[in-house]
Parts: sequence; structure tokens; C-alpha cells
Amino acid sequence: MPSYVVKENVSLDKRWVSEITPKAEDFSKWYLDVVRKAELADYGSVKGCMIIRPYGYGIWERARDLLDRRIKDSGHENAYFPLFIPESALKKEAEHVKGFAPEVAWVTRGGNEELEEPLAIRPTSEAIICPMYAKWVRSYRDLPILINQWANVVRWEKVTRPFLRTTEFLWQEGHTVHATAEEAQDETLRILEIYREFVETELAIPVVKGLKTERERFAGALQTYAIEALMTDGRALQAGTSHNLGQHFAKAFDIRFEDENQQMQYGWSTSWGVSTRLVGAIIMTHGDDSGLIVPPHVAPIQVIIVPISAGNWKETVLPHARSLLEKLRAAGIRCKLDDRDNYTPGWKFADWEMRGVPVRCEIGPKDIEKKQVVLVRRDNREKAFVPMEGLESRLTAMLEQVQDALFRKACEFRDKNTTNVDTFPVFEEMMESRPGFLRCFWCGSAECETAVKEKTSATIRVIPFGADEEKGTCVFCGKEAISRVLFAKAY
Amino acid sequence: MPSYVVKENVSLDKRWVSEITPKAEDFSKWYLDVVRKAELADYGSVKGCMIIRPYGYGIWERARDLLDRRIKDSGHENAYFPLFIPESALKKEAEHVKGFAPEVAWVTRGGNEELEEPLAIRPTSEAIICPMYAKWVRSYRDLPILINQWANVVRWEKVTRPFLRTTEFLWQEGHTVHATAEEAQDETLRILEIYREFVETELAIPVVKGLKTERERFAGALQTYAIEALMTDGRALQAGTSHNLGQHFAKAFDIRFEDENQQMQYGWSTSWGVSTRLVGAIIMTHGDDSGLIVPPHVAPIQVIIVPISAGNWKETVLPHARSLLEKLRAAGIRCKLDDRDNYTPGWKFADWEMRGVPVRCEIGPKDIEKKQVVLVRRDNREKAFVPMEGLESRLTAMLEQVQDALFRKACEFRDKNTTNVDTFPVFEEMMESRPGFLRCFWCGSAECETAVKEKTSATIRVIPFGADEEKGTCVFCGKEAISRVLFAKAY
Repeated sequence: MPSYVVKENVSLDKRWVSEITPKAEDFSKWYLDVVRKAELADYGSVKGCMIIRPYGYGIWERARDLLDRRIKDSGHENAYFPLFIPESALKKEAEHVKGFAPEVAWVTRGGNEELEEPLAIRPTSEAIICPMYAKWVRSYRDLPILINQWANVVRWEKVTRPFLRTTEFLWQEGHTVHATAEEAQDETLRILEIYREFVETELAIPVVKGLKTERERFAGALQTYAIEALMTDGRALQAGTSHNLGQHFAKAFDIRFEDENQQMQYGWSTSWGVSTRLVGAIIMTHGDDSGLIVPPHVAPIQVIIVPISAGNWKETVLPHARSLLEKLRAAGIRCKLDDRDNYTPGWKFADWEMRGVPVRCEIGPKDIEKKQVVLVRRDNREKAFVPMEGLESRLTAMLEQVQDALFRKACEFRDKNTTNVDTFPVFEEMMESRPGFLRCFWCGSAECETAVKEKTSATIRVIPFGADEEKGTCVFCGKEAISRVLFAKAY
Repeated sequence: MPSYVVKENVSLDKRWVSEITPKAEDFSKWYLDVVRKAELADYGSVKGCMIIRPYGYGIWERARDLLDRRIKDSGHENAYFPLFIPESALKKEAEHVKGFAPEVAWVTRGGNEELEEPLAIRPTSEAIICPMYAKWVRSYRDLPILINQWANVVRWEKVTRPFLRTTEFLWQEGHTVHATAEEAQDETLRILEIYREFVETELAIPVVKGLKTERERFAGALQTYAIEALMTDGRALQAGTSHNLGQHFAKAFDIRFEDENQQMQYGWSTSWGVSTRLVGAIIMTHGDDSGLIVPPHVAPIQVIIVPISAGNWKETVLPHARSLLEKLRAAGIRCKLDDRDNYTPGWKFADWEMRGVPVRCEIGPKDIEKKQVVLVRRDNREKAFVPMEGLESRLTAMLEQVQDALFRKACEFRDKNTTNVDTFPVFEEMMESRPGFLRCFWCGSAECETAVKEKTSATIRVIPFGADEEKGTCVFCGKEAISRVLFAKAY
């Protein structure tokens, strides 16, 4: 390695990190810097479409597998339905088409022919899945249908932001049909709880479960439930939704079955989904001014091994680092060895911190002598000298500690930024100066909800479960309230 | 359970199976019957688009995971690129657009606006991935790029058949860039070998590796290699392709890097893919007149437990069947208990045979007494009485035996239907009466290749590796041959 390369790169250390805009200065710019510099995603030539780069996709892939396991363990099966929805099918459920038509991409030409009927690229798949269910369901014995699919969907968005709102995104969408209203409601809430547990356990993001107001409801649903998270800029992010569709779609698409008494009945359906926006939620929940912090459960690289490159390190340190890598991999730890010879250890430290690898493992000549390594946690930068012997179990435990600490920190932030507010002047002032979740009484009218949005841009994120027990008067109009609700500015 | 249901269904036993057209009578109809009755796929309202039902998707999902592991273990990472390709990008590589333009679906409207530039729905992703590689690659240190994606693609096909040729299909597509021609060629062949090993080991389908002729080459490639399998109707199926793209795409999309001597060089790229058509290959390689046979490695259900429903079986047999299910699941065997009370055991046997579950496990009152079960292999229908004790390891071994037997049987069929043919009259007669792989000498001219196709509809599937060592004269024109090649009628 020519020495000038090292020198040049030493000076890069600072520049590399300082290229990330501080969160406090411009949160939105900080977000885009992290996405770009950690190589999570990139933009291509089609407006609003993002490229999910391997590191970003690695996070999504792990989250997907962890959720997929839960979806299957709860009795659902995966399938795959077509990308295209005929215009006539999309129009069958009146509310549904009203909600989605403005953001649909249309295929009008196939090969060299103009199509007789334009095809919508699925913005969501109810309108292509329900006709199949109508065909498959005959008897109560065919129910419930519990199907999920992992797919891409397209919504023609005007303003986009990587992971959070993109023209095309990846998601899973569950679509179920049940024999009774009760079963459909149970399924809706069961999935909501699976989402909560998954997002909290694996992504270390605390969420609030609750019901959406009519205004925020999925187009065509009877009820929409959601889990809402609070990002570190004080804005809320809807992390997953579960819809009880009642009989709306069953009636529109004629999903009927013969019940145990030989009577024909319409089915009751649900749909539910989470998407690649969860990657955005991870960035905005855990990241700091040095860049990303990836929760260990979904980290593509959990431990980065950085050899201290002094002297003839390739002969002295590198072989030890390599056998360390093998040892940790054999123990099921996802790790990588940074053996690049054109960067200094200091540069590598900053680089991997920026990419949010949960634990750094340094190994140098002195460590080899002492049969130890140096471990540095990304979340709190704590440094520990740890003996080689038994390192695997120490590291496995440390990764769990990081996961826990990230969750606890996020809970603390969320709690500190959740405030009961009872008067509108305070509400307005808070939303301006220090946004977060504001728990307020609400009378239940769409007029108040709309007026609050117009004045402050805040919306009702959810009516949290159990929040209707407290009595009070609407923060906006002063009339008797139906519940406390969670207001926030949202992504 | 009302007794009339059982009676009715007893009579269904025969009808259920006899609804499958015999292979010898009409292979194509047999195929469609199996797809429909085993609930692998269904058609929806959009022409040529298939719905992959849970059972079919379960096979694909397992195949995907087994290949994904190999792709990752060989150093590739997954990513995700957009569904849309701007028309101008698709046009950049001249051969590429010529090959794909006729089968592209075009998005011309987004939301309520006409688009200024139509967007192609990817028929393959070179034209959307290469511009990104051009942006990401700066120095030889950035190479190789080894990226794969699992995605849906769309090709506007006129004649479709589930799994084999559908307007939309699922696949993986690898796209790599290398610093030298040699590395690109090595990668192309390395992937071909991974495909061969994967298809033979996991899907139990023997394949021939070789080079495609210019006529059959991927649009824009320097060389296309393929693995070709022989279906049981004597027609060939291309099961995977690996393309050395040379510098064609690097030059069209300006993928350049600074080499170690500070000189700018164009990269060398490859692309490669397998698709959901592999599910079609499984059906047509292993299936018989009773329906599907799924190789155990990719079977969503490896063992179906059927309780013998005599007397008060729900009290006597069912609890034992349930604990058997738990025991086998704990041993990592994918199994299911058919506890439906409206079908007879005989009906269930026929049903699960039709669905191709590799092993049936019957348990009845007598078996419980004798502490045994009855195992029946789907592939050869061999029946064995096996003690409960140690059943897990016996079953695990039996599943491997079925996997092996399926592969050996397929190899035998392929070998029996691979014939050296040296004269064109024999060629024509064979293709008519008993099609298969015909190994013939070929002079290397596209004219002979085209003439043979026009006369017999057979094409050169591959020039098998090593087949150029034998000397002879072209089966069509009699001129000196460059190699023996593999002719067949193909899917």
C-alpha cells in the first residue's frame, strides 16, 4: 500500500462524517444524507422510483423474513397475484376506486397494440384478489382464506422521499376472508398485534396501536387500525395498517359461500400491510449525527472486524482477524472483515459508524498478544476489552443489549414527546415549537379534525385503544369528547 | 359427520383422479389439469397473467430460498431496481431493444397525466440497472459488482401457458460487472454451474449445460449459455440462462472505471436468470397420470398424515395423529395432518397423490395397537409398515430416497431419449414419432439451423460442452461440422 493513500484518507476521516448534515440543523437533509452515504438507496432516471441498494435491501430482507415467519406461524400462506388490474375491476368498489384512481399508473399499450381496456398497475391488490376469492370460495368449508403476498406496488406520488414515499415500493399485503364479522374483526386485531410485536421486537421501534378516524381510513374499509411510531424529529410515521373491510369487497366482488345451513352468505374480509417505509422508520428512529444505527436483529452486518493496520499488519494481524471472522460466523453472528488496504483504521471506524453496524471489533498486535479484542458499541460508543476466549457468547449477548438499549431509548424519546394537551393555543404552540404526539380530547367530528389539520398540519394518527375511558371536551370545539386521540404531524 | 357425505365422496374418489387427462392421451391437457387440480395456479381476468396459488407458490418459495442461499454463498448480494424503464434507456443497446421491444407493456399515463416519455415495464432489467452501475463504478476497487434481484417481469406474450410462458412472471436476475473479459466469462460459467447443481440437486431435474447459437442468444449478449432439461413428452425446456454481455452494455451505458494504471476502461458485464417456469419443469419432469410428484427438497408438504377414520376415530385415532404431527414437525419434516371429516381415507389418498406429496403416512387403530404407521411413497407407491419409534429418521431417509429416485428416473428418461442422429430423414422421422434430444452434427450456419426449424420446428437447444471434440458432417447440409449439438422441440 503506497503511503500517500493512507495520508490522503486520514484527511478524509473528518470530511466523510462531516458531510452528514446534523440532525438539529436540517432533519430532512440529514435523512437524505444517511440514505445516500450509507448506500441504502439511490435515485434513478424515473421520477420517484428508488433503487434499494444491497445494504438497504439487506435490512429489508431480514425484516421481511422475520415478519414472514410470524405471518406463516399464524396460519397464513403466501401466494402471488398479478401486477395488473383491469380498469373495470378497480372500479367495482366505489370508495376504493375514488381513493386510489388519482394515483394509478396505467398500461395502455402491450407490444405494438393499444389495449382495449387500460390496465392499472396495482396500487394495492384487493381488486385483483377478490375476483379470485369469489371463484375459489363455495362453502363455509373453504373459509377462512388466509393469504399473504410479498409484492411491489405503484402509486403515482407527486412528492417522494426514499423509503417513506416512493412511486414504487415493496410490501406485503394480507387478504383474508371469513365466515363471520367477528372472525374478520379478530383477524384484523390479531394482525395488528403481530405488527406491533414484530416492529417493537425486531426493529426496536415502539408503536401505539389504535383505530384510524374515518378521514384516515383505507379507501373501502369498514375500519382501519394502525401502529404509529414517533420519529426523532417529532413527526409520526404510520408503520403498518390492518383493515377490517366488512362485507364491502365481498359484496362488490360477489364473494359468497354456502353456510352450514345451506344458506348463501357474503364473506367478511380483511387486508393488512407493511412496506419498505419501515426502513425509513429505522433510520429516523435510531440514527444520529454520525449516521445510521441498525438494530442488531435486522442488521446485515452485526459486527465489523477492523484490523489495526500498523507495520506489516497483513502478515501479523490479518490472519488472526480472518480466523476471528470464521469463528464468529460459525457462531451465527453476521460479521464482515474490513481488510481494505487503502483506508486507515480511523477512516474505517467512521465509515462503519456511519453505516450503523451495531458493534465494532478491533484487533491489533497488542490485542493479539493479550489474547483479546476491543469491542465498541455503536449506540453508546462504550469500549470494552474482551478476551478472545468466549467472545462469541459475549458478542451475542452484547448484540441483544444493543437491541434492548435502542428500544428503551426510543421508548424514552417517545414518552418524553407524548403530551396531554387540553387547549388549542397550547396545541398550536407545541406543534410549532416542539412537535410530538399530543394526546387530546376530540369530539369525533370530521370538521374539527379538518380544521386542526388546516391550522397546524397535524392529523389524528390513531384513537389509541383504551383512550376512550377518560372524559373531557374537544381540544378544538370544546364539545363533549368521544375519546382522547393522538395528534401529530405525520410522514 | 353425516354419513351421506362420506358416501357421496367415496364415489368422488374415482372421478377426482379420472378428471386428469392421461399423459399419453394429451400431454398438454394433462399439464393444465395438474396445474388446476393440484391448485398450483389459476387464471384471472387479465390475459396471460397467472395467479400462483399457495401450493404452487410454496414450491417456488422453497426453490427460491435454496437458490438464494447459493447466490449469496458465491458472493452476490440482493438489491431491488425499479419496475419502470424509460423508453430512451431501453433503446440504448441496439440489439437489446430489437429483441425486447415487441413484447413490452407500456405505461403511458400516471394519475391523471399523460407521461411525456412512455415507461416500459421491465422485460429484463439491464436497461435500468446499467445506468446505476455507470454511476456507482469509478475505480477498479469498486469491481466486481455482484448483484442479484428477485422480481416480477412482464413480456407481452401472445400464447401463454401457466408457469411456462406467462405475461408476468417471477424470476431472479443477476447483473454483474467485472474488470476483465476473463472474469466476466468465469462468472458466466460459474453461475451456469450453480444453476446446474441447484436444478439437479433440489428439483431432481437433470440438465445439459452448453452454449446457445447466435439465433437463440439473449438480445444484446456476446454469448448465452443455458441449462436444458428434457420433459417427459420429449420436448426440451430451457431451465436457466447465463449471459456473457461482453462490453456491449458497458459501452451503451458508459460503465467505465479507472484501472490500476489510472487508465479509463469499460467494464465487462454478465446477466443470468431462472424463473417460475422451473415449477412447470418440475410438473413435466416428475408428474404422472395420478397428478403431480413434488421432489421432497422443495415440497411444501413432505409428509401427509392421513388418519384412518373408522368408528369413533376422532377420539381414538386423531389424538395419536396429532402427536405424530408434532413429533415429525419437531424433527424438521414439513408435514400436515388431513383431519377433514367430510372425506374418506380413500378420497384423501387420491387427493394427496394428485398433489404430489412425496410420502403418505397412514395411521389407524391397528397401527396404534402395533405402535407403527404405514408409509407409502408417492413415486413408486411402495408401502412399508414402520415402527413409531425412530420414525423421524426413517422418514428423513425415505425423503432423500424419493429425491434420489426421482432424479435417477429423470436421468434414465433423458438418456433413453437422447439419440445420436446423423441423417436428416431419420431426424425428421424421430422428431415426428418420438421426439427427444437429438445429438447431431451441425456446420455452424444459421441457414441450416433455420431450415431445420422450418421443417421440423426443432431448434438447437445448446452446443453441449465438449461436444466439439467429435468430428462429422452437418445433419442438414453435409458440410464439415463444428460440433455435435442438441436439437429438440422446445417449450
